Amino acid sequence: MANFKGHALPGTFFLLFGLWWSIKCPFRQILRRKERQVGDRERQKLTALFNRIDLIEGSLKIFFAFVGIMAEQFVPDGPHAHLYQDGWVKLMNWQHSTMYLFYGISGIADVLSVSSHHVPVGLDRLFLSLALFVEGFLFYFHIHNREPLDQHIHSLLLFAVFGGSASTMMEVFKRENAVLELLRCTLAILQGTWFYQIGFVLYPLSGPEWDLTRHDNIMFITMCFCWHLAVALLIVGICYCGVFWTSKWCERRQRGDMEMGLRKSTSTDSSSQKALLQESDEE
Amino acid sequence: MANFKGHALPGTFFLLFGLWWSIKCPFRQILRRKERQVGDRERQKLTALFNRIDLIEGSLKIFFAFVGIMAEQFVPDGPHAHLYQDGWVKLMNWQHSTMYLFYGISGIADVLSVSSHHVPVGLDRLFLSLALFVEGFLFYFHIHNREPLDQHIHSLLLFAVFGGSASTMMEVFKRENAVLELLRCTLAILQGTWFYQIGFVLYPLSGPEWDLTRHDNIMFITMCFCWHLAVALLIVGICYCGVFWTSKWCERRQRGDMEMGLRKSTSTDSSSQKALLQESDEE
Amino acid sequence: MANFKGHALPGTFFLLFGLWWSIKCPFRQILRRKERQVGDRERQKLTALFNRIDLIEGSLKIFFAFVGIMAEQFVPDGPHAHLYQDGWVKLMNWQHSTMYLFYGISGIADVLSVSSHHVPVGLDRLFLSLALFVEGFLFYFHIHNREPLDQHIHSLLLFAVFGGSASTMMEVFKRENAVLELLRCTLAILQGTWFYQIGFVLYPLSGPEWDLTRHDNIMFITMCFCWHLAVALLIVGICYCGVFWTSKWCERRQRGDMEMGLRKSTSTDSSSQKALLQESDEE
Amino acid sequence: MANFKGHALPGTFFLLFGLWWSIKCPFRQILRRKERQVGDRERQKLTALFNRIDLIEGSLKIFFAFVGIMAEQFVPDGPHAHLYQDGWVKLMNWQHSTMYLFYGISGIADVLSVSSHHVPVGLDRLFLSLALFVEGFLFYFHIHNREPLDQHIHSLLLFAVFGGSASTMMEVFKRENAVLELLRCTLAILQGTWFYQIGFVLYPLSGPEWDLTRHDNIMFITMCFCWHLAVALLIVGICYCGVFWTSKWCERRQRGDMEMGLRKSTSTDSSSQKALLQESDEE
Repeated sequence: MANFKGHALPGTFFLLFGLWWSIKCPFRQILRRKERQVGDRERQKLTALFNRIDLIEGSLKIFFAFVGIMAEQFVPDGPHAHLYQDGWVKLMNWQHSTMYLFYGISGIADVLSVSSHHVPVGLDRLFLSLALFVEGFLFYFHIHNREPLDQHIHSLLLFAVFGGSASTMMEVFKRENAVLELLRCTLAILQGTWFYQIGFVLYPLSGPEWDLTRHDNIMFITMCFCWHLAVALLIVGICYCGVFWTSKWCERRQRGDMEMGLRKSTSTDSSSQKALLQESDEE
Repeated sequence: MANFKGHALPGTFFLLFGLWWSIKCPFRQILRRKERQVGDRERQKLTALFNRIDLIEGSLKIFFAFVGIMAEQFVPDGPHAHLYQDGWVKLMNWQHSTMYLFYGISGIADVLSVSSHHVPVGLDRLFLSLALFVEGFLFYFHIHNREPLDQHIHSLLLFAVFGGSASTMMEVFKRENAVLELLRCTLAILQGTWFYQIGFVLYPLSGPEWDLTRHDNIMFITMCFCWHLAVALLIVGICYCGVFWTSKWCERRQRGDMEMGLRKSTSTDSSSQKALLQESDEE
Repeated sequence: MANFKGHALPGTFFLLFGLWWSIKCPFRQILRRKERQVGDRERQKLTALFNRIDLIEGSLKIFFAFVGIMAEQFVPDGPHAHLYQDGWVKLMNWQHSTMYLFYGISGIADVLSVSSHHVPVGLDRLFLSLALFVEGFLFYFHIHNREPLDQHIHSLLLFAVFGGSASTMMEVFKRENAVLELLRCTLAILQGTWFYQIGFVLYPLSGPEWDLTRHDNIMFITMCFCWHLAVALLIVGICYCGVFWTSKWCERRQRGDMEMGLRKSTSTDSSSQKALLQESDEE
Repeated sequence: MANFKGHALPGTFFLLFGLWWSIKCPFRQILRRKERQVGDRERQKLTALFNRIDLIEGSLKIFFAFVGIMAEQFVPDGPHAHLYQDGWVKLMNWQHSTMYLFYGISGIADVLSVSSHHVPVGLDRLFLSLALFVEGFLFYFHIHNREPLDQHIHSLLLFAVFGGSASTMMEVFKRENAVLELLRCTLAILQGTWFYQIGFVLYPLSGPEWDLTRHDNIMFITMCFCWHLAVALLIVGICYCGVFWTSKWCERRQRGDMEMGLRKSTSTDSSSQKALLQESDEE
């Protein structure tokens, strides 16, 4: 699918997942800190909620991967599940199918991790890391013999892909590290926007074509990648602040309601204050 | 041994070890969790059992390495332990002998680790990591000046070899990490199946020879490596589930027997329930 | 700004920050050890002091980054915020602006980390690491098609830049590790002095021009980089000792004052001795 | 010093240090385990002994580095401290001097680490790692434009050098990790023997010269490097066992003496048995 749509499609997926993670991760981080405050029943409810969310996320990953594989195979100029007919048939589509396959496997690992206690902790991150690695691995051997700018713009993508793979692999060992989670969000968004950028450069929707051999263009694209990174950091930052202020606002409203109730029974007040103090100590 | 058998032999060894590990590792992981439940005597029995298994594994490694070295040296067209006679004699065979030597050393380290308390913890993993590193190191300098596809298919092997070396080195520091153990199993199986793939491509048993210079073939082989990885993950997954369900089934039968006994003496019932609750808490 | 000043400017900034850190870090390390001794009020005062210092540091970073961007854009031969006019306008200046931008973002992260408890721990280091990575990333793609010595002298800079990025990334996970902090100081100073060296070599203030193609010069410059590293280590060492002796001297004077006071009330003496013994045990 | 002696000299130093470490490290590891058993006074005596040993080691390093620098500068065909006289003077010797300089700095760091409590823990390892890095760094840029075998045999050295640098850097964070210490010993010995090998290959003492362009020779040398690694592992293993058995023998003799004494006062017997049991538990 060497056209604009073929780059916009994965770009949209990565962008959506990146945005979704940059809402989910800060939310979970905030709740993790608050968890110590709340009672056992509340905590179990939260854990169940998050498990359900992860289950849906995993299922969506499997579904999208399946759709992606089907689309790559059965588009009009696709291989229609034929691999070899007097030579390899549409290897590009097969390679893309393989990439989707590994994201599908990662989705299965997500679902299993949530639904069973016996799956080793961190397996979901290992499979996501592997999926990213395979994507980068296939791209790496896929960009030889192209025009300089085409090659360069795809090799910049590899920084986001392998960076994401490495940071996700770190999460296997340093689970629930807030900084690594935010880095993963950023790199997912970066990958998403960069897929769009590749589409715009190689298959411009309007205006003149880019000269794929000029050194100037390569220099600009390198710098442009850094701008995308800055924008991705900004988006993650905005999401984080948004989630944080929403949670603050909810909490205040909730506390307001609680205080209404507490006027009747003031004895628990001191204990909630103690919990608040503990929270601020721990932070 | 540049023929099909020469690739099938190491492939079979890696495949067998990979499969064996992907049964041993989940088994040990499941027992490790259960260990807290069982009494001290039970635990000692399990530890002794695993030590015996590791001892046998180490001995087998030494034996296979010895056989491998002998085979490489004394096959009809081998060097017969001559290194230099008006020029280096059969350096390929000597290189393969060297690889086997390091797996033999790794086997010795395994045996020593099990049989003495005074060997530093993690030494067995260090030596396995070194053996894999040496294998990759020799392969790396061994594939120059070959046909493009021959070079590419061997360099893909290096991903499995160095990946295995790195993940085993991590195990020196993060011992008993379930995810790393499963990754090691996967990479061993991947290496095994990939050796077979190399054999099939370079020395096809039937059908036409592969064109070693076509870019299409290189692209297919790259993708094929990812499929092997997916298959290796699948095999490890199946082994894990198999071991898990078998252990569940054994436990249930055992518990059934125990319950038969408990009907007579119901006082211990509450304590076993407590233990079960503890288990589910810890998981 | 391909002239001496263009290299002296960033060099001065890195040198100043490196020197400042190599005073701040040992100071903080010494206080961290002493913190256990002092009372709660004292500790809060120290924390507040360091927060204020970090706040000022972050603000300065933002200010310098802003000045840097403005200077790159609005120097007489700068792009004046024009990016494309029948071709890319002054991409060099744009690239430098991008580098400054990321240091500015790192400054913002510093300020946020200090001013709010809800920013994940280690975020400031992640952003500093990213800023260094982006600097190295842009330099890496920026030095193609130059004279051998020009290329070599810039690629040596990358060792300091990427080394700094890696060691700062490590600090995300191993926060308050004294060795990593000193390494960061050293690499910042190294980067500063090396920028000066680049300026002196490529745009000599006096004397003959360097022959940019001679192999001898490249060999000398490689060695010279190691000498800069040795000097940077020396500077950090001197700063460390200076801070250490100053703090010792202050403490002794303070203790002298205290003893004067203690002659009146000798009961607290034994407890302070105990604290001292604890300190020496812990070290 | 491009002759046999010029390679034998550093080789001897590395070999001696490697051997010395592979006696010191196991000795210390064994004592570290036993430390919990012995009384406080015994422990202080051991710590003092080890500090004295480290002090001597550091001083020797400084001395050897000084001698090395002087030798490189003032040999008859050396630069005699002249750096520039109508062109760079004897840059090779200057580069070797620089390498020695960093080992000297590492010696200073060792001495400081032992003699003061205020030096951050791990600084000695950081400096040793830096010294190895600088050695590798200078070698890396030093082997261009040579014959293929000369280049290859030196680049193999880099595996030992950078491997040593990486493993020593790990020791900054994982101090007193037995496996890392043994790895460091092995890589030091490997470096030592490989320097000799380089000397024998490039400047053969007797017999014909090696053909520096034949691919066969390169293949043999690659394999030979692995054999050196195996030999280094063997040497470290023998040292470890030697130290272990010596310590066992000493202990038994000491215990024999103690038992003679204990027959008079049997009350302490049970407590020493308890300590022994604790020891075997901990191991």
